[in-house]
Amino acid sequence: MDILLKNVHLIAEPDNNTIIQTNIVIEDKIISEISPTAQISAPEYVIEGKAHVVLPPPINSHTHLPMTLLRGYSDNKELMSWLQEDIWPQEGKFDRKWMTLGTKLACLEMIKSGTGGAADFYFHESVIGEVIKKVGMRGWLGAGILPSAFVDQGGLEFQMQEFHKTLKLSNESSLLNTAIAPHSQITVPEDILIQTADLAEQYKVPIMIHASETRSEVMNSEDKYQVPPVERLEQIGFFKENAKQIIAHCTWITQREVEILGKYNATIGWCPVSSQKLAYGGVTPIPELRSIGANVALGTDGTASNNTLDLWREMREAVNVISASRWDPALYSAENVLEDTCWTFRRNFHPESLLKVGNCADLVILNFNSPHLQPIHNTISNIVYAANGSDVHSLIVNGTPLMIDREVLTMDEDKTLDEIKSKVPELIQS
Amino acid sequence: MDILLKNVHLIAEPDNNTIIQTNIVIEDKIISEISPTAQISAPEYVIEGKAHVVLPPPINSHTHLPMTLLRGYSDNKELMSWLQEDIWPQEGKFDRKWMTLGTKLACLEMIKSGTGGAADFYFHESVIGEVIKKVGMRGWLGAGILPSAFVDQGGLEFQMQEFHKTLKLSNESSLLNTAIAPHSQITVPEDILIQTADLAEQYKVPIMIHASETRSEVMNSEDKYQVPPVERLEQIGFFKENAKQIIAHCTWITQREVEILGKYNATIGWCPVSSQKLAYGGVTPIPELRSIGANVALGTDGTASNNTLDLWREMREAVNVISASRWDPALYSAENVLEDTCWTFRRNFHPESLLKVGNCADLVILNFNSPHLQPIHNTISNIVYAANGSDVHSLIVNGTPLMIDREVLTMDEDKTLDEIKSKVPELIQS
Repeated sequence: MDILLKNVHLIAEPDNNTIIQTNIVIEDKIISEISPTAQISAPEYVIEGKAHVVLPPPINSHTHLPMTLLRGYSDNKELMSWLQEDIWPQEGKFDRKWMTLGTKLACLEMIKSGTGGAADFYFHESVIGEVIKKVGMRGWLGAGILPSAFVDQGGLEFQMQEFHKTLKLSNESSLLNTAIAPHSQITVPEDILIQTADLAEQYKVPIMIHASETRSEVMNSEDKYQVPPVERLEQIGFFKENAKQIIAHCTWITQREVEILGKYNATIGWCPVSSQKLAYGGVTPIPELRSIGANVALGTDGTASNNTLDLWREMREAVNVISASRWDPALYSAENVLEDTCWTFRRNFHPESLLKVGNCADLVILNFNSPHLQPIHNTISNIVYAANGSDVHSLIVNGTPLMIDREVLTMDEDKTLDEIKSKVPELIQS
Repeated sequence: MDILLKNVHLIAEPDNNTIIQTNIVIEDKIISEISPTAQISAPEYVIEGKAHVVLPPPINSHTHLPMTLLRGYSDNKELMSWLQEDIWPQEGKFDRKWMTLGTKLACLEMIKSGTGGAADFYFHESVIGEVIKKVGMRGWLGAGILPSAFVDQGGLEFQMQEFHKTLKLSNESSLLNTAIAPHSQITVPEDILIQTADLAEQYKVPIMIHASETRSEVMNSEDKYQVPPVERLEQIGFFKENAKQIIAHCTWITQREVEILGKYNATIGWCPVSSQKLAYGGVTPIPELRSIGANVALGTDGTASNNTLDLWREMREAVNVISASRWDPALYSAENVLEDTCWTFRRNFHPESLLKVGNCADLVILNFNSPHLQPIHNTISNIVYAANGSDVHSLIVNGTPLMIDREVLTMDEDKTLDEIKSKVPELIQS
């Protein structure tokens, strides 16, 4: 399929100095030319881009896709009563059917808000992978490991089988990648933490974990092990040379832990909106993590605690929480957060789809022809502080258009919404 | 003009217990009937509302509309260098022509994001009022008073003339209301503060002021007057019985000042996104202000420090900043912030347009037929945590449709955007 983008404003790198007005040609899934005169005969799609801005689509660095089913089901509660009274009893009912439906809604929401893929972390991860593949997005499938699951989502054996299923899926599709995802260092026994780290090294797949999300998690770790969570993970040999790490949250970490994360070049799955909504209090030390060489990548967390998958909205809130908590508006800029949303994850986990000639064609197109995106003194400022997911015009992943001019092409939008409206009440009442 | 809304979900009061599915009839600018069987013959507009939610349109409690011209012009700078190096030099060029253009863009943005009106605070306020009236929105025109203006926007005499012009305008239009707006207690001399308070009392119009916005303002006030800003305002007799107060920000106030604001039933023009972006550090003590009887009303501040006029987005950020800073997700709920956005200002300044039979017809209609607004476990949660301005379907103010199905009816959207694109570069280069 050949696609021509005409006269678009391309953000080639996440700074204002590299914005160029150009044509872009996509041939056979590859970006074949970027130049003001680039043309192609008889393209299937032509996007006329007078007020259109093109950049690499964000990858959501940490989420739980099927939780779309619980958007708005419970809010404004303290974490443990929120989980124990409301979330876990519902999640316990999530079988393959519900996982599929929740992931379909999540993929529809991500396509409509211009997200190119997600690093997911859940149970039944192979089911989630099947949906992601079908709609044409990129997925990093974190097979959840939590043997004494507080939600009834299988024991260790079932969860290991799921990991192997995701490995098989990712061997079959260039869109999918496997990861192994022990829940946290406080909820998973030490021998299994070590076993998952060994598996990640053996299969050369990333390992995902939640760490230092809440104050009580840090207190628990210090009580039991005399060190905070990230430090303990290093002590037990969780960080391996051949297995990249995606560490979610890191809301409450010490400078010593910042240095550990920098040393291993870990990726931080930072979810500032969820942390604020759940009232964790802490703020991930983003400037320190960035300057020491850790990879900060923006995520939304699940929609029960955000409550959207909209990474454009997340960007403004990410900058503002750093500015406000540190009393310094210059510590973390619009250009920084754009890099951490649209570049960092991809650079580390899929550089072959960075927006360059010869690479797989992954592009998101924003329509700036809206009052809230005018005038344009600074394109990146308008993206970070004013755009939201509804400003996405088109999304192309791996050369395939998933949405053109807000029409979703790889899913039936109306049918999916109808299914959600008719079936979700059953889930809650069951 | 007669309008029929069929089968909409009406939020009659800002809580989940009062959502009803109903028809609504608007005749001759008035809500004439609310009932499931309400009908009218040959209405000019019919809105079929299967997935549509209706509530009173937000009023922006504190903004500077023409600053849309400077959206994204300067970000990530410390307040005083941001103002002195970037904002004031540009604002100094704002004559009637630029005020008109900036207000047109602001009104277009507000209509598209479903805002019914604004309490504005600027210079050349009569020019701003003319635009607001022309497009059919509601305005509270705060004529700015700052005799030694750091931007060249006339001296005291010119500013007082503007106040009298806004009085004349508001006598001629039911959409407009006057206010007098001394800049702050630290920038306006004491005799003029007292003079403006007397004028507000004499004409029975609200008085607007910025107070306790930054740490340095509080420090300055304590150095000079031995008391913080709100306390000093009380001491000099600024709060009058017959003149309602709209006090913007109150970012850094003491419990004693909370009590003063409660005693006078003051309205707080709370702008949490702007406070965060400008790194003020403090968080307005919203739960305390609400429980003591002050009126908390949400605003965006100007678009140079937000950078939108989108009050739907502002709501999520408002709740989350309270939850995060107070370590308590239950202190300020989705229902609370919805009340403070769509009810509180109107109850205090224009109860005759609250959404009730017999009242002026002001309604905003949200379209929930979007993936990020499904499923609906809790309508108010979805509005606060997931909706944004682009989800607004239609806006009716004083019985006049300003936008139906996202088509703006009282302004030429394309022409306004073209004017912005072609003219704003002149402003910056001049």
